[in-house]
Amino acid sequence: MELKKILEKRSEEAWKKYIPTLSIDCAIFSFRDTSLQVLTIKMKDQDSWGLPGGYVQKEENVDDAAIRILKDRTGTENVYLQQFYTFGNLNRSESVFKDYDDNLWNKQRFVSIGYYALADYSKVNLNIDDISNACEWKSTDDLPPFMMDHRVIFDKALVTLREQLNNHPIGYNLLPEKFTMPELQKLYEIILGKKLNRGNFYRKILKFDILTKLDESRKGGAHKAPNLYSFDLEKYDIALKEGLKGNW
Amino acid sequence: MELKKILEKRSEEAWKKYIPTLSIDCAIFSFRDTSLQVLTIKMKDQDSWGLPGGYVQKEENVDDAAIRILKDRTGTENVYLQQFYTFGNLNRSESVFKDYDDNLWNKQRFVSIGYYALADYSKVNLNIDDISNACEWKSTDDLPPFMMDHRVIFDKALVTLREQLNNHPIGYNLLPEKFTMPELQKLYEIILGKKLNRGNFYRKILKFDILTKLDESRKGGAHKAPNLYSFDLEKYDIALKEGLKGNW
Repeated sequence: MELKKILEKRSEEAWKKYIPTLSIDCAIFSFRDTSLQVLTIKMKDQDSWGLPGGYVQKEENVDDAAIRILKDRTGTENVYLQQFYTFGNLNRSESVFKDYDDNLWNKQRFVSIGYYALADYSKVNLNIDDISNACEWKSTDDLPPFMMDHRVIFDKALVTLREQLNNHPIGYNLLPEKFTMPELQKLYEIILGKKLNRGNFYRKILKFDILTKLDESRKGGAHKAPNLYSFDLEKYDIALKEGLKGNW
Repeated sequence: MELKKILEKRSEEAWKKYIPTLSIDCAIFSFRDTSLQVLTIKMKDQDSWGLPGGYVQKEENVDDAAIRILKDRTGTENVYLQQFYTFGNLNRSESVFKDYDDNLWNKQRFVSIGYYALADYSKVNLNIDDISNACEWKSTDDLPPFMMDHRVIFDKALVTLREQLNNHPIGYNLLPEKFTMPELQKLYEIILGKKLNRGNFYRKILKFDILTKLDESRKGGAHKAPNLYSFDLEKYDIALKEGLKGNW
């Protein structure tokens, strides 16, 4: 029970350092090899995976706590980060620590504020802390069992991406600077949870006038090299403010 | 200082009854006389108005606490209620109680979970509790100064209505069962924060095929009596699931 020892040793300090009742959980997404991925951790002595999280310091804004937690885990600050929902059911987290002392910090009731982050896969340096065994990207279409209510938190994060696709710069923050049209379509398909007709998608996305067609194509591969595009940030920002009107 | 006496008397009980750090604030909307209104309270010994709120009991889900707070204030439970954002900045609420004892429950740091509610004006019975002097509907285009960060909370609630107008049954829950087209247009204009062209609005909203034109018209008034409509709930629900594609 290595986890138990560490948590017991750290409990008294946690009571002094953090505001009670509140935790933060982060669904950190990235897009790689045409797959939407989410960052997962595995705590020591636990069978299931979870989303990375943490607590709010007594003299810290909640948003700043989320930025700190994200930085501790990924080594990066410059990431699109949005609060999306707060999870407040009874017994959502306490059961994991049922065999522990009742005064243990981690065994208290926590209401968790969910944040989603959109990270550039290539800029992230994963950090395994001392209560975890593993910290890994997992494809969102093949997730392992999650601990506590973390599957509910993940599902709500994905639904939020879907609802915000036309109003937030989600494509821009998940794709590399230069991308192909099939990559953009694949990202939209994963977030929307359905296949899209290629011709319709191309026509609609080009009609928004938010993409710049580059004088380059993707090298390598057996097929005809597909054209590369990038977002025209100025036009994209204006279009998002009004909301993209795509009947996807 | 009547308020101080009441809060001091109640503080010890509050520490026992509620989970620390967390409060709930509610933006309760209704639509009346072509005006969007929000429910406001005025605490005793305070100059500014605020949104009604409360705390979460130790053995209570957060959503259930919001339902209880709404019921205490409006006498009604059967109301569309949605969590929309959590407000976690330092010193968002503590300053109101700066002259009070540091151990006072209300003087602690609270992170507040915002809920919005869409209420039928005619079914609400306002309840003034013992720490308030007044509980009143105010038109959203003519609001008084708000205490703490309640103006920020209100603004975020209104932006949320705007973002969710095409995906949540906001029109249905704010309008009476039978309404005229000018009333529906007015509601959309207030939530979207802009004037809409009458002909375009009628054409678009009818094209969604979510309204039933009734064999009745609004009685009274000098002008030609306008036709009454109601929502076709079955079609409305299906359309919201896909999202109304209105370029308003």
